[in-house]
Amino acid sequence: MKPSGIQAQQPIGPDAPNFADRLLEAIRRKSSVLVVGLDPVLERLPQDVLQRAGVDPSMPDAVGARAAEAFRLFLGGVIEAVADAAVAVKPNLAFFERWGAPGWEAFEGVSRKAKEMGLLVIADAKRGDIGHTAEAYASAFLGDSPATPGPLVDAVTVNPYLGSDSMAPFLERSRQTGKGLFVLVRTSNPSAGEIQDLDAGGIPVYLRVARLVARWGEGLRGTSGFSLVGAVVGATAPEEAARIRQALPSVHFLVPGYGAQGAKADQLRAAFLPGGAGAIVNASRSVLFAHEGKAGFWGDAIRAAAFEARAEIEKVRESVSG
Amino acid sequence: MKPSGIQAQQPIGPDAPNFADRLLEAIRRKSSVLVVGLDPVLERLPQDVLQRAGVDPSMPDAVGARAAEAFRLFLGGVIEAVADAAVAVKPNLAFFERWGAPGWEAFEGVSRKAKEMGLLVIADAKRGDIGHTAEAYASAFLGDSPATPGPLVDAVTVNPYLGSDSMAPFLERSRQTGKGLFVLVRTSNPSAGEIQDLDAGGIPVYLRVARLVARWGEGLRGTSGFSLVGAVVGATAPEEAARIRQALPSVHFLVPGYGAQGAKADQLRAAFLPGGAGAIVNASRSVLFAHEGKAGFWGDAIRAAAFEARAEIEKVRESVSG
Repeated sequence: MKPSGIQAQQPIGPDAPNFADRLLEAIRRKSSVLVVGLDPVLERLPQDVLQRAGVDPSMPDAVGARAAEAFRLFLGGVIEAVADAAVAVKPNLAFFERWGAPGWEAFEGVSRKAKEMGLLVIADAKRGDIGHTAEAYASAFLGDSPATPGPLVDAVTVNPYLGSDSMAPFLERSRQTGKGLFVLVRTSNPSAGEIQDLDAGGIPVYLRVARLVARWGEGLRGTSGFSLVGAVVGATAPEEAARIRQALPSVHFLVPGYGAQGAKADQLRAAFLPGGAGAIVNASRSVLFAHEGKAGFWGDAIRAAAFEARAEIEKVRESVSG
Repeated sequence: MKPSGIQAQQPIGPDAPNFADRLLEAIRRKSSVLVVGLDPVLERLPQDVLQRAGVDPSMPDAVGARAAEAFRLFLGGVIEAVADAAVAVKPNLAFFERWGAPGWEAFEGVSRKAKEMGLLVIADAKRGDIGHTAEAYASAFLGDSPATPGPLVDAVTVNPYLGSDSMAPFLERSRQTGKGLFVLVRTSNPSAGEIQDLDAGGIPVYLRVARLVARWGEGLRGTSGFSLVGAVVGATAPEEAARIRQALPSVHFLVPGYGAQGAKADQLRAAFLPGGAGAIVNASRSVLFAHEGKAGFWGDAIRAAAFEARAEIEKVRESVSG
C-alpha cells in the first residue's frame, strides 16, 4: 500500500528498521490498525488487582508504590488481552508520572512487557522544548542507551509549538535509531481550534503545522514510502482530517478520539488513504475499562472490547475505496 | 508594586497563598528575580561529584541510578550555592527523565532540597494535553497529595497548543492549591516564530495566546493584583516581549534565554513593568556550569555566577523608569 507519487527510499540503517515499515508490517500481519491507549486510573482498576497490590482504594493518596504495582499487574493483563487485536499500545505518561518516580518505573515495566508481547510502544508524552532540552527528551524516548527508557519505546508524540529547531534533535535521533514521531497537528478536544484553527494567511495554523510535518519527514521514509514522522489528527474533526490527509499523503496519522471521546467509526474515514492505509486508531478508556459493570474475568471483557474495536475499524478501512 | 488598573482580590484560600503573592514576597525579601534552571548533564558535572557517585564518565550509559545520585549530590550543592541569590529554581524535567525512573527520583529529591532551602520550585515540564490527561498532569505537578510530586512543586510550565480545555484542569487545581502556571507564549529559540509569529487575523499567534492567558488568569489574582497564571516570554525576542507586556500587565513573565542562550541583560528591559516588577529571569547553564575551567571548589564558582547574574538583572530592573 505505497502512497501514490512517493518514491520508496532505502531504510535508514541495517540495524534500524524504519518505524513506518515496522508499523506497516504489524498492520499487515494482524489485519488491524488498533492502538490501545494505556491511561491507568487507580479508582477504575479491578478489585482483585487492587487487593493483590495492597491498595486501599479509600486511601488512594497514600500508596504511590502500590499504585505503580497495581498498574503493572493490571496493564500486564491488558497487554496480554489486547496483543492479538492491537498493533501498538500507547502508554500516556501523565497517568504514570501522576505517581512520581514509582509511576515512571511502572511505565518502563509496562512498556517492556508490551515489547515482549510483540506490540509496538508509542510513548504519549507530547513533549516539546528548545533544542538543548529537546535533545534530552529525544534521548529519553528515541535513544538506544540502556540507561534511558529509549530501548522500550518505538515512537513518541511531540508538540510543534516551538518550531523546527525543537524538532531537530528528535529527527536526528530518529535518523539514528529508526524510531518514530507523531507530531500534534489537529487534536481531538473541544477547544483544539482556539489556536490550531486560527486563520494564518488564508490557511489554518494546523495546515501550517502539517506542511512543517511534511518537511520534517523528508528523507526519513522507509521502503514503504511512508515517513517515520507521523501526525496526530483527532477523529472528532473529520473535515480537518480530510484537509490534512490531502497535505500529507505519505504520513501515518495517529488518530485519537475514537470511543470514549465520542468519535464514531464513520468519522474515521477521512483519516485513511484510498485502500485503507495511512492511519492507526487509538482507543483508550473504551477498551481499558471495558470490564466495568461486567461479570467474569476483567481480561476477557478487555479482550472482547479490543477485538470489537478492531472489527469496527477494519470495516471502515474496507469501505475506503481504493 | 501593584500593576496599574488592577483591582486586588482576596487570596484563593487561607491555606493556599497565591503563587504570585509568594513570588513577590520572595522577590522583595531577596532583592532578586533570578531563577536558576537545573538542566543537569552528566558529562559536565564536577569530577569529585562523579567520583563520589561512582560514575565512570567514559561509560555514561551504564549508570542510570548513579547518574541520578550524582545529580542529587551536585544539584544539592548548587541549591545551597544559589539560595541567597535566587528566588526560585527551575528543574527541567527532560534532563531528569533522560535517566528514566531514577532520574525522576532525583527530580523529586532535588525539589525537596530546594523547598527546604526556601526556594520556590518551578517544574519546567511544558506539559499540554486534552482535559482527561491534563487532569493527571495537573495532579502530578500542582496537587497536594503526598503520593505525587505536587507538594514539592510551586509552579509548572505548560504548552497552550491544545487550547482552553487543556488548561482547565490546571486552572482548577491551581484554584485549590494556589500554585502557579507559566504558559508558553513566545519562546526564546531561533525557530519560535514559525508558528508563534504567524499572522492570525492581523495579530500574531503569540498575541492570541497572550489574550487566552489573560482570560485564563482572571479570578486567580492574589492580593498583589498579579495572577498565578504567568507567561513564558523569551529574552531573545524583546520586541515581541514588549507587545506581550502591554497585553498582560498583571502577569508574571518567566523569561528564559538569558546567559548561555545569548540574550544580554539589556534585552530583558522589555519584560519588566515600569518600576521593575512583573518578570523573573532564568539562567541555566551560565550558572550551573560556572565551575567549568575554574580552579577551586565548584560551589564557589556557581555561587559567584548566581550573584553576578542577580546584580546584572537588578541593574536592569533599577533602570526601568517607574
